[in-house]
Amino acid sequence: MARSSSCTSSWARRLPCFDGDSSNRFSGRNLAGDLLPSLGATTQQPPKLRKYLVSPYDPRYKVWEIFLILLVVYSAWICPLEFAFLRYLPRAPFVVDDVVNGFFAVDIVLTFFVPYVDSKSHLLVDDPKKIAARYLSSWFVFDVCSTFPFHSISLLFNRHEHSLGLKFLNVLRLWRLRRVSSLFARLEKDIRFNYAVIRCTKLISVTLFAIHCAGCINYLIADRYPDPRRTWIGAVMPDFREAGLWVRYVTSLYWSITTMTTTGYGDLHAENTREMLFGVAYMLFNLWLTAYLIGNMTNLVVHSTSRTRDFRDMVQAASEFTARNQLPQQIEEQMLNHICLRFRTEGIKQQEMLDILPKAMRSSTSLYLFYPVVQGSYLFKGVSSGFIQQLVTEMQAEYFAPKEDIMLQNDKPSDLYLLVSGAVDILAFLDGTEQIYGKVAEGELLGEIGVMSNKPQPFTFRATKLSQILRISRSKLMDIMQENREDGQTISSNFQQKLRMEQRL
Amino acid sequence: MARSSSCTSSWARRLPCFDGDSSNRFSGRNLAGDLLPSLGATTQQPPKLRKYLVSPYDPRYKVWEIFLILLVVYSAWICPLEFAFLRYLPRAPFVVDDVVNGFFAVDIVLTFFVPYVDSKSHLLVDDPKKIAARYLSSWFVFDVCSTFPFHSISLLFNRHEHSLGLKFLNVLRLWRLRRVSSLFARLEKDIRFNYAVIRCTKLISVTLFAIHCAGCINYLIADRYPDPRRTWIGAVMPDFREAGLWVRYVTSLYWSITTMTTTGYGDLHAENTREMLFGVAYMLFNLWLTAYLIGNMTNLVVHSTSRTRDFRDMVQAASEFTARNQLPQQIEEQMLNHICLRFRTEGIKQQEMLDILPKAMRSSTSLYLFYPVVQGSYLFKGVSSGFIQQLVTEMQAEYFAPKEDIMLQNDKPSDLYLLVSGAVDILAFLDGTEQIYGKVAEGELLGEIGVMSNKPQPFTFRATKLSQILRISRSKLMDIMQENREDGQTISSNFQQKLRMEQRL
Amino acid sequence: MARSSSCTSSWARRLPCFDGDSSNRFSGRNLAGDLLPSLGATTQQPPKLRKYLVSPYDPRYKVWEIFLILLVVYSAWICPLEFAFLRYLPRAPFVVDDVVNGFFAVDIVLTFFVPYVDSKSHLLVDDPKKIAARYLSSWFVFDVCSTFPFHSISLLFNRHEHSLGLKFLNVLRLWRLRRVSSLFARLEKDIRFNYAVIRCTKLISVTLFAIHCAGCINYLIADRYPDPRRTWIGAVMPDFREAGLWVRYVTSLYWSITTMTTTGYGDLHAENTREMLFGVAYMLFNLWLTAYLIGNMTNLVVHSTSRTRDFRDMVQAASEFTARNQLPQQIEEQMLNHICLRFRTEGIKQQEMLDILPKAMRSSTSLYLFYPVVQGSYLFKGVSSGFIQQLVTEMQAEYFAPKEDIMLQNDKPSDLYLLVSGAVDILAFLDGTEQIYGKVAEGELLGEIGVMSNKPQPFTFRATKLSQILRISRSKLMDIMQENREDGQTISSNFQQKLRMEQRL
Amino acid sequence: MARSSSCTSSWARRLPCFDGDSSNRFSGRNLAGDLLPSLGATTQQPPKLRKYLVSPYDPRYKVWEIFLILLVVYSAWICPLEFAFLRYLPRAPFVVDDVVNGFFAVDIVLTFFVPYVDSKSHLLVDDPKKIAARYLSSWFVFDVCSTFPFHSISLLFNRHEHSLGLKFLNVLRLWRLRRVSSLFARLEKDIRFNYAVIRCTKLISVTLFAIHCAGCINYLIADRYPDPRRTWIGAVMPDFREAGLWVRYVTSLYWSITTMTTTGYGDLHAENTREMLFGVAYMLFNLWLTAYLIGNMTNLVVHSTSRTRDFRDMVQAASEFTARNQLPQQIEEQMLNHICLRFRTEGIKQQEMLDILPKAMRSSTSLYLFYPVVQGSYLFKGVSSGFIQQLVTEMQAEYFAPKEDIMLQNDKPSDLYLLVSGAVDILAFLDGTEQIYGKVAEGELLGEIGVMSNKPQPFTFRATKLSQILRISRSKLMDIMQENREDGQTISSNFQQKLRMEQRL
Repeated sequence: MARSSSCTSSWARRLPCFDGDSSNRFSGRNLAGDLLPSLGATTQQPPKLRKYLVSPYDPRYKVWEIFLILLVVYSAWICPLEFAFLRYLPRAPFVVDDVVNGFFAVDIVLTFFVPYVDSKSHLLVDDPKKIAARYLSSWFVFDVCSTFPFHSISLLFNRHEHSLGLKFLNVLRLWRLRRVSSLFARLEKDIRFNYAVIRCTKLISVTLFAIHCAGCINYLIADRYPDPRRTWIGAVMPDFREAGLWVRYVTSLYWSITTMTTTGYGDLHAENTREMLFGVAYMLFNLWLTAYLIGNMTNLVVHSTSRTRDFRDMVQAASEFTARNQLPQQIEEQMLNHICLRFRTEGIKQQEMLDILPKAMRSSTSLYLFYPVVQGSYLFKGVSSGFIQQLVTEMQAEYFAPKEDIMLQNDKPSDLYLLVSGAVDILAFLDGTEQIYGKVAEGELLGEIGVMSNKPQPFTFRATKLSQILRISRSKLMDIMQENREDGQTISSNFQQKLRMEQRL
Repeated sequence: MARSSSCTSSWARRLPCFDGDSSNRFSGRNLAGDLLPSLGATTQQPPKLRKYLVSPYDPRYKVWEIFLILLVVYSAWICPLEFAFLRYLPRAPFVVDDVVNGFFAVDIVLTFFVPYVDSKSHLLVDDPKKIAARYLSSWFVFDVCSTFPFHSISLLFNRHEHSLGLKFLNVLRLWRLRRVSSLFARLEKDIRFNYAVIRCTKLISVTLFAIHCAGCINYLIADRYPDPRRTWIGAVMPDFREAGLWVRYVTSLYWSITTMTTTGYGDLHAENTREMLFGVAYMLFNLWLTAYLIGNMTNLVVHSTSRTRDFRDMVQAASEFTARNQLPQQIEEQMLNHICLRFRTEGIKQQEMLDILPKAMRSSTSLYLFYPVVQGSYLFKGVSSGFIQQLVTEMQAEYFAPKEDIMLQNDKPSDLYLLVSGAVDILAFLDGTEQIYGKVAEGELLGEIGVMSNKPQPFTFRATKLSQILRISRSKLMDIMQENREDGQTISSNFQQKLRMEQRL
Repeated sequence: MARSSSCTSSWARRLPCFDGDSSNRFSGRNLAGDLLPSLGATTQQPPKLRKYLVSPYDPRYKVWEIFLILLVVYSAWICPLEFAFLRYLPRAPFVVDDVVNGFFAVDIVLTFFVPYVDSKSHLLVDDPKKIAARYLSSWFVFDVCSTFPFHSISLLFNRHEHSLGLKFLNVLRLWRLRRVSSLFARLEKDIRFNYAVIRCTKLISVTLFAIHCAGCINYLIADRYPDPRRTWIGAVMPDFREAGLWVRYVTSLYWSITTMTTTGYGDLHAENTREMLFGVAYMLFNLWLTAYLIGNMTNLVVHSTSRTRDFRDMVQAASEFTARNQLPQQIEEQMLNHICLRFRTEGIKQQEMLDILPKAMRSSTSLYLFYPVVQGSYLFKGVSSGFIQQLVTEMQAEYFAPKEDIMLQNDKPSDLYLLVSGAVDILAFLDGTEQIYGKVAEGELLGEIGVMSNKPQPFTFRATKLSQILRISRSKLMDIMQENREDGQTISSNFQQKLRMEQRL
Repeated sequence: MARSSSCTSSWARRLPCFDGDSSNRFSGRNLAGDLLPSLGATTQQPPKLRKYLVSPYDPRYKVWEIFLILLVVYSAWICPLEFAFLRYLPRAPFVVDDVVNGFFAVDIVLTFFVPYVDSKSHLLVDDPKKIAARYLSSWFVFDVCSTFPFHSISLLFNRHEHSLGLKFLNVLRLWRLRRVSSLFARLEKDIRFNYAVIRCTKLISVTLFAIHCAGCINYLIADRYPDPRRTWIGAVMPDFREAGLWVRYVTSLYWSITTMTTTGYGDLHAENTREMLFGVAYMLFNLWLTAYLIGNMTNLVVHSTSRTRDFRDMVQAASEFTARNQLPQQIEEQMLNHICLRFRTEGIKQQEMLDILPKAMRSSTSLYLFYPVVQGSYLFKGVSSGFIQQLVTEMQAEYFAPKEDIMLQNDKPSDLYLLVSGAVDILAFLDGTEQIYGKVAEGELLGEIGVMSNKPQPFTFRATKLSQILRISRSKLMDIMQENREDGQTISSNFQQKLRMEQRL
């Protein structure tokens, strides 16, 4: 069987959702398009691209993208800072700015050489014309504007470097933040990362950025105000324009976080109408942001505790049930053990997940897991592989905790069991007391006497270790045996032979 | 088939919930009446009204309603402002007020000529007497009071324009806000608009209005206080009565939002008992409003992330399942792909939605979608249309991702498949290796050999592209064939003919 | 049939949960006992009590209880006030106190004459010894302590009325608040009242009480502090002990709410260690209370919007489904209408509610609602009432919106319908176009030709008005007919007769 | 039947989750391992350990663990206090510290002698080498570092006790807090404790610890600042270094809680850059902590009110249903009573819990509860115990409220009932009125005449008291009778005999 995908790196294989941000573009109103990872990334063969193109799945391109994200974070931090504290900054940052701009300019050019995944066909499009058309018609203009070195060019022509207009053009660079935004959108869908951690990191980033920006803007307002003593910072620090950059920046941040968290000591507060208006806008934003933070945290808390809560509810239901009905302690213990075992062995939503899989997939899973065990059983010796395949498809795996009863003596023979692993005792009531009659080894059948002869089960079966057991209902077994007459007869004769051998013993 | 509704504008058609606020009136205790859109709006023919009546579905009436909403917003903003800062305002707003009042007066008259939708029969009532009786017995009095130009009339009789009593009468105009309230109630039910956006807009509007009102009232209290220096604003701005309107208004807003967000810098605070009492009331209201904001935000966050969370849980369940059972990588890949595909192709609650539809509606959907495809299949050639209709009604559509198995060799022939779109490979184990035996074209059947001859499937079928496939269970097919003997024989002979042709090849 | 409970007042009948607070006593760890209303209250005959006993269901006793609740509210307000501002209060309140105490003393005596509902048997216990034993062993001591007039008695012996010890004894009166607490617990379970309103009222009451108490305690701390200028109130109002009670009380409240809502202007703040410690405790409590308020509000918001959200999700699923499959507009309209109709006609959890009812109850509901309609149908003329009863029990009611198809031509005859109300058109394809063939009147059957002769339905049935229709599946009808041979033959002959009459026409 | 676990103490038996913190170690990425209690703790026999080992289930070891927790709490309180206020502290605490350290040193040694539960086999490992290897490779180093008496040793060598480095080493002792953390993790899963209480205690502990730490750190910053007047405490208390420890500690706590709750009076606020930076960090942490608190509280509120809400929704659905369909009052009463009864008798998630139990466990529960009752019934006299066992396994218990109908006259005989407890009237319509025909005693059958003779039920059965009733469907009874011919005939003859006896009467 060809394993065509085995040549993709194992790193990429476990990452079904990390197919570049191309699937997010033009997502429009369709939530699904935004939510779901590209199907192609994992199932396609590594695409054979035209010579001069760069695969979006190339690890080097991934590294380049991560490097750009770091530059974006730097931009987001330095940009408001320059905007507010420009006058006092040394020349160095501007040089750094130009270097950073250079990298983004390279990326703009590079984008023309990176194929994209078409949202309809889920195929990689490597036609250069289509790539160019797509980029030019979407974000090209914004990318160019946010990268254009307005400041350096203005320096070439005139020397009025403090003009507010130029500063505003610098703010365009914040457009680059969309890269961080789409990174978080991707990471949230990636199960390799903890959802709560990603979500919290995102919220903290937004909060920090808001605090940083608000602090810078508020300082700018004070800095531009004609009367320095009638400003929020000048009221407590009259000669603030001569103070060091660090002191002024920390004071701005301090005001910003004090307002954001609604602590509002009042040692720094708006002194003039401009500051009041900015404060009004900032506080309204904070109201919304705080509510959003709390909403997200509640969401995470509710989701993270849901499993513990379900477990508690279940155990409590069992406790109440046994207490109300005064069940003997042995049954209560079995119940609690079974519930514990079930929560331990079964993942969240596992049954739901199995239910939505198509039949053929469930069949191949069962075949892979149980075919050898079933084939090795004495009852199915000499039976065609098609028969065993049909049988295995209908089987279900169950776990039994130690001391749990699998079947009771005199029960209706409704199911046939097969012990996959663990250990099971055979018990029978003799002279009014329960006596151990034998043991079932791994790979042996349980209850086949009742099922094959359609009589009440002659024995009680009880697990003594944690046991995994396959179960098939008698009616399904009989259906399959009737449809495959020959195999059915083989099974019957196998059973008769075993019975005779046991009688001899 | 008459498409009677095709003459209604497409804009109105997609808007099942925008049937005027008439359905909200008298909603009483019945939640359903309030929640659900009028049934009549989309299914009725455009009503033929009496000559002088105005249809509530008339686009011009809609425009008039939207224009009134804008006037309401203006009223809500100007009314507290006049109430608090009246003395210093120029004459102009009062003229504007009278004009606005005029429009509302026109609306009161107009309402007598607009039919309403009866909440029981869901029919448009255009009897003028009933319209009048309904309006007079409900909101007529409030509408008149909120529109009556008390202020202008008082000016005619005396000149004491600052009397507080008149101001309070102005506040009656806030009654008009019920229009905004019912607009939001309608928009929330309208799926053309994003629920989160509408809900946030509503909350922001309420917050802004509360801030505006509280600021104005607090200023009024200070303005009326005998000792200006012992007021919240006079303590920091002793000559505040001489200050400009803008400064005073911004300061009021600033105090208001500072208190609302519980920032409470303390630069402006209550100085006398009156202000303290107002502060107590306002802060209590804020406590409630903040909790309501957070509650709504949590609700929105939980709802908006539920799909991503479900997807993550499902993928994680699959990962854990495959890891625990050490399934081969090929099966894991198929599982993850299938889950991704399912979330991509199936909308939220789609299955639930289809389940509540009546049988006839599901039948007509199936007929519309699949009748031509099924009719074109070789097996159903010459079969009566009634037979195909019954067959199609029982069919279910499924999607298969590339490399997913549709059917396994040796499987029980439980289902018949029909490839609608995509591509499927036919595979068989020959000499221990899987070999491609052929391909299934769009419109061809899968697994009919097993189903018709009731033998294990001779081939494995595997999708090679994203494929849409119709599925019908063998038992249902056999039931329908037995009930339609003739058609059943046609199908059998079609199948025999095909087999013979293939054997010749 | 005896309607024994018809003599209980209709007010009490609709109030299954208002069975006095007796069921809450000794509730212990059993949640159910606390949650659920007493069963006895509605089903028992008005109990015949011993002569000198007072029924807890007596309206006069209810009035007495409500009167006591009002006194409790007064106590809760006056008690902290006396505790803090005692020295300056006139003599009057103490007299009022003694009167209030008198009423509570009367209630203590009265409790010995009020039977209680036993939590196990759900029967009213009117044995005076048991009543006394129960009260004496539970809350008697607390009730007496909280009612004992320590203050008045201390006045008899000595005149040191300001001793703090006595004040603390007064605080015992807050024990009475358990009555308010149990009132809210009852009201929350009473569906006559809106849950959100009750819950909000409870939270607001708790908040107001906390603010009131904290204000009083904080004032007491300042009042007792040796240096008045080093207190939170003395720092801004040096001669506060001479100020009026109103001013001091409002200032205390203002500080209290400012701290509670975390506004914290800072104009009033702790000045000494004692005040700081109280502030620390109060702020910790506030943190908890605010979180609890927000949690409750979120809970209410989530619950109240769940129905609108479900409706939106459902409509959106239908829209996406039709858009993706490009279904014709007619089907989309039918779908949207049906979903709207379903949400309109069906209450929250109605289906779930019906599912948990026992079979006999569902049967009697069906019998009451549908027996006359089914009996009047021509097909069931001359049929035994037992047969109709069995038939009716299996029937299900459905609603169809105008223009919705009930059955399609050529469909499998799987169900028989009976039009209860509304109007339905009979349509058939003739010469390729759909033509109206007739109309179904209320009380007539739909699709009986297909069902009785087991042929595909010859007609399409389409609702033209909002129609209520009963549905029974063909298989169930046939089962019942087979079990009642005679009635089955009557039905067959009724059907043949009808067919012959129609053929003549 | 051996009750091997009966010798474990009842205290430990009811505590399925309290199996020491060993299961939490190395929990890794597997949530289940962290969530679920060890299976072994309740089912294993008390382990026979090597002589010198200490059982982790030994009550004395539990007491030792709880004692250590108390020491941890003390450490967590004293450690930041020493860190900040060291210079002024007397010598005593250091001695206490050394004693506390001694106990933890003992615990380190002890850990080498305590077996642990292996996370895979769920068996107790008592091999000393494995115990040592496990401890040495996990937390040994941290435990030693947090216990090492750096401070005392430094005193031996030099006398510079105020060096900040040593203080930081003291902070290592906070590592011990992991014990508290794992204690809470265990308690949350232990159903003997209320989840809400445990969760709230945990959150309050975290809050208090954060407040305590922040207060101490902020004081330390002020204490170390060169200019005491430019610190947050020195600005209002210039000679704070001379003030008493209590005053300084309370002031620190007061600042801390004022900031934590975002009250922010502003009387104490940052005065220099260091304090501002710490404030920024602390406020960011508070934002997160507050959101987490609210999220948890919301979670608890939503969970705790879910049952009341479900009950209300259900009752409201019933009320709306009866109101809309104008059902007679008698049916409405029965419905409401039944819903109340159901919520009273059935725990949360009980049905869900029973569904996940394996069949054998449900069978043994049924056998234990109902075997004697069914055996005593006249119909099953002389029947084999295997037959009764099969019958009992299929039976379901139901509760009926007084006046509720169990079966209606003329109903299809679909179920056989057996009255376990309570009282039931037999009613029949005679001459158009309902007349009481007889009574059913406890242990008697209901409706066996209809079921055995397959005729409509001749009587109506109505509960007159709260009744518990067993139900088995007729089809299952007939199946079992057919499979056990002899027993079936016994039953038939029992029935005939009874009928004849009744006819004689």
